[in-house]
Amino acid sequence: MTAYDDLMEFTRDTQALGQVAGRLGWDQETMMPRGAAPQRAEEMAAMESVLHARRIDSRVGDWLAAIDDKTLDAVGQANMRHIRRSYERTSKVPAALATRIAKLTSAAQGIWAEARAADDFKAFAPTLAEVIMLKREEGQALAAGGDVYDAMLADYEPGTTGADLEAMFGAMRPVLSELRATVRAAEGPAKLSGSFDEGAQMKLTRQLAKAFGYDMARGRVDKAVHPFSSGSGLDVRITTRTNESDPFNCFYSTIHEVGHAAYEQNIDSAYLLTPLGSGVSMGVHESQSRIYENQIGRSRAFTGWLFGQMKDAFGDFGIKDEDAFYGTVNRVGDGYIRTEADELQYNLHVLLRFDLERALMTGDLQVSDLEAAWNDRFEADFGYAVDKPSNGVLQDVHWSVGLFGYFPTYSLGNVYAGCLNEAMRKALPDLDANLAQGDTSAATAWLGENVQTHGGLYEPREVIERAAGQAPSEAPLLAYLKEKFRGIYGL
Amino acid sequence: MTAYDDLMEFTRDTQALGQVAGRLGWDQETMMPRGAAPQRAEEMAAMESVLHARRIDSRVGDWLAAIDDKTLDAVGQANMRHIRRSYERTSKVPAALATRIAKLTSAAQGIWAEARAADDFKAFAPTLAEVIMLKREEGQALAAGGDVYDAMLADYEPGTTGADLEAMFGAMRPVLSELRATVRAAEGPAKLSGSFDEGAQMKLTRQLAKAFGYDMARGRVDKAVHPFSSGSGLDVRITTRTNESDPFNCFYSTIHEVGHAAYEQNIDSAYLLTPLGSGVSMGVHESQSRIYENQIGRSRAFTGWLFGQMKDAFGDFGIKDEDAFYGTVNRVGDGYIRTEADELQYNLHVLLRFDLERALMTGDLQVSDLEAAWNDRFEADFGYAVDKPSNGVLQDVHWSVGLFGYFPTYSLGNVYAGCLNEAMRKALPDLDANLAQGDTSAATAWLGENVQTHGGLYEPREVIERAAGQAPSEAPLLAYLKEKFRGIYGL
Repeated sequence: MTAYDDLMEFTRDTQALGQVAGRLGWDQETMMPRGAAPQRAEEMAAMESVLHARRIDSRVGDWLAAIDDKTLDAVGQANMRHIRRSYERTSKVPAALATRIAKLTSAAQGIWAEARAADDFKAFAPTLAEVIMLKREEGQALAAGGDVYDAMLADYEPGTTGADLEAMFGAMRPVLSELRATVRAAEGPAKLSGSFDEGAQMKLTRQLAKAFGYDMARGRVDKAVHPFSSGSGLDVRITTRTNESDPFNCFYSTIHEVGHAAYEQNIDSAYLLTPLGSGVSMGVHESQSRIYENQIGRSRAFTGWLFGQMKDAFGDFGIKDEDAFYGTVNRVGDGYIRTEADELQYNLHVLLRFDLERALMTGDLQVSDLEAAWNDRFEADFGYAVDKPSNGVLQDVHWSVGLFGYFPTYSLGNVYAGCLNEAMRKALPDLDANLAQGDTSAATAWLGENVQTHGGLYEPREVIERAAGQAPSEAPLLAYLKEKFRGIYGL
Repeated sequence: MTAYDDLMEFTRDTQALGQVAGRLGWDQETMMPRGAAPQRAEEMAAMESVLHARRIDSRVGDWLAAIDDKTLDAVGQANMRHIRRSYERTSKVPAALATRIAKLTSAAQGIWAEARAADDFKAFAPTLAEVIMLKREEGQALAAGGDVYDAMLADYEPGTTGADLEAMFGAMRPVLSELRATVRAAEGPAKLSGSFDEGAQMKLTRQLAKAFGYDMARGRVDKAVHPFSSGSGLDVRITTRTNESDPFNCFYSTIHEVGHAAYEQNIDSAYLLTPLGSGVSMGVHESQSRIYENQIGRSRAFTGWLFGQMKDAFGDFGIKDEDAFYGTVNRVGDGYIRTEADELQYNLHVLLRFDLERALMTGDLQVSDLEAAWNDRFEADFGYAVDKPSNGVLQDVHWSVGLFGYFPTYSLGNVYAGCLNEAMRKALPDLDANLAQGDTSAATAWLGENVQTHGGLYEPREVIERAAGQAPSEAPLLAYLKEKFRGIYGL
């Protein structure tokens, strides 16, 4: 056994234990009896402590020192890149600081939830200030003199900097804001109304999951409060939710999570339980969920097929034809909440958070000014005022649990999806004819071969560049959105 | 922190990780997608390896050496008894032997399953001989000059010896065999026939679980191929199964598993995630499942109530009244299979296995003679011949996975249930009036206070002795069975 073999064997066990911890998380949201929560917290903490001990295990340092990456093949070198990055990250952060962050963010999530329920930002502000202070300290340790926010981004999107995103998002904001205003001034498509049996929603949602290539033999669909995808390799489970008056929430949550899950399921099986065996970054992950959900799932062609399926499942539900249905699916509405936003407005929500959290990290924005900054920016971009903190600065859990640098990956994913969609459409000129039959196989196969199969083999931007044939840019997404929404709104 | 505090903190994490591994097992039997099996094997192996490393962790040896048990209170001393016993057991067995046993029994289970499917004992015999050889080697290491079979028993029922069981079972066998023959010669109650909707079975089975005090806020009921109970403390889950023609299988599997689960749920919450926080032995565990299932669940009083519930759920199903129903529930039938045996015959199946496995361990019986020995003994005790190995020596998985010393705990559990039932009936003279209303609360509260709450605080025999007010004996069980079955068969 070489040092590399030893390290990979150790890493394989760590990956397997990580999958176990992930499955506990799935169980907690779907199956766990409610009274089990205190015990589960101890079980999770014990698993976390096992995983942490493996991350700082001194043998890993010895193996890393003994391995000359240049003697390895491309897969070996990619494995080493992931393992070294993770080990160095852990080594840079003092253990005491990591413990303080873990304890604080665990408590902060509860404080945030209470403040949101009470619509009282001031009740959360001191805690948020503490979180920011500790996360900045962590960022400084990670950056080692470099940019603190870039160091945070690297946790979610290695290879992308704050400056990259500033340029990209800066180009997007005026276009999206103007398109949004134009669309909102026009007469929109009808809103869906009526009541849709939740059992029938779940039945159709399972059909949709299969239609998008989700392998049920290596996964399952359950209900949960928040839709999510969980696990890698041979056991990738998704959840969705139902609401009698809003079947689109169920269907598009499912398709979105199938995008995440299919990515995990379609990674080269040779990478199972190695660092290459899961999605390479948050942005690339989101590119898959978004292209499944939007560019494919909300396309004119696919919604035409879905219209028929919904009529079969629910009878006449008051939408007259496929064109009207396409409009209804893509209707641009009012709203304050990111997770409920339509395809056009979604990125405006993210851009706002990116600018604010970056300013919080640099110190250009203080927590005491955050609520006003949020409200001003929201009104500027959306044209109406935030009515209460739970519809504004308190709506997302992310900052309370210390996730800074995470929000922008949502929009980066949309940008990547735009690039991939352009290339995919070129490669598959007959795609719409297939989608109109509910057949997504050409699209999912193209994404499987060009993106998903690689897992962690390439760096995130390289994955997109190889698949799209050019460097990532916001231009395809913007062009796609303009064409789509001008068409729907007859502009 | 004292050495005891450190050891208990370490132990608490180990217990939590053990619960996680148990939950994976539950998931595998209930929720896991079938294609996930190869990955799950790696996840389980990684967990097992973490748990093993903790069992042999040298810090535990240091703590054990530093702790003077006499300075601790009763709970502390009981914790130390469990921890020392487990550590010493692990220390006594050479690591290489433990690995060989783990590998062999993992393969042997598959070989046994194939041999059973092919009804070919010879295909399994060489593997079984190997298992016995290694288990005997392990037993010798554990016994350190003492009785090998006693050392094996100690894994499941500390404090009980092969000689104890030989005396107890020796007194039971002629009585049971004679009662069996007498009953079988008489005209029996009607057999249940008809079709019973499986959805309605599950609905009623959940009612039964609640009626027996199972706390659904800290548990759940799912379907699985084999009924089981899993987990301790705040998360104790059970499974059952349905068969359209046999609702009793569903109901009494549920009640049996609720007996196991209620034991775990009712342990003093101060013992959560400590060595005292789960059932003290297999025998005491089985005493709870059996008394719930038989002495309470199959009593004349409770079946009277159940008859009404079944009529509500399924309409008229051809049994004329409560008395007839009581007979049908307790009907003594033909059969070869232990797990399907009625209350009267069940122990004869176990006594057979105890004598044979003990003889296998001492070397008085060779694997080459096992099938014949099984068949001879079966015909002597049951009055008819085994028709094929899958109905005989190949029916149980236990020996293939190295479980020697486990079988007798089933009958010991029945003996304990007999003792507890006698004491409980004395303490609760009005119990039948409650049971006739479907109200088991007096019985389950009595068992909760007198048995379950103690968890691992006392040694197994002491638990029963304290609750029953006298040393365990087979006499109450035999008297109960005689009275019950003579009554039902009008003898």
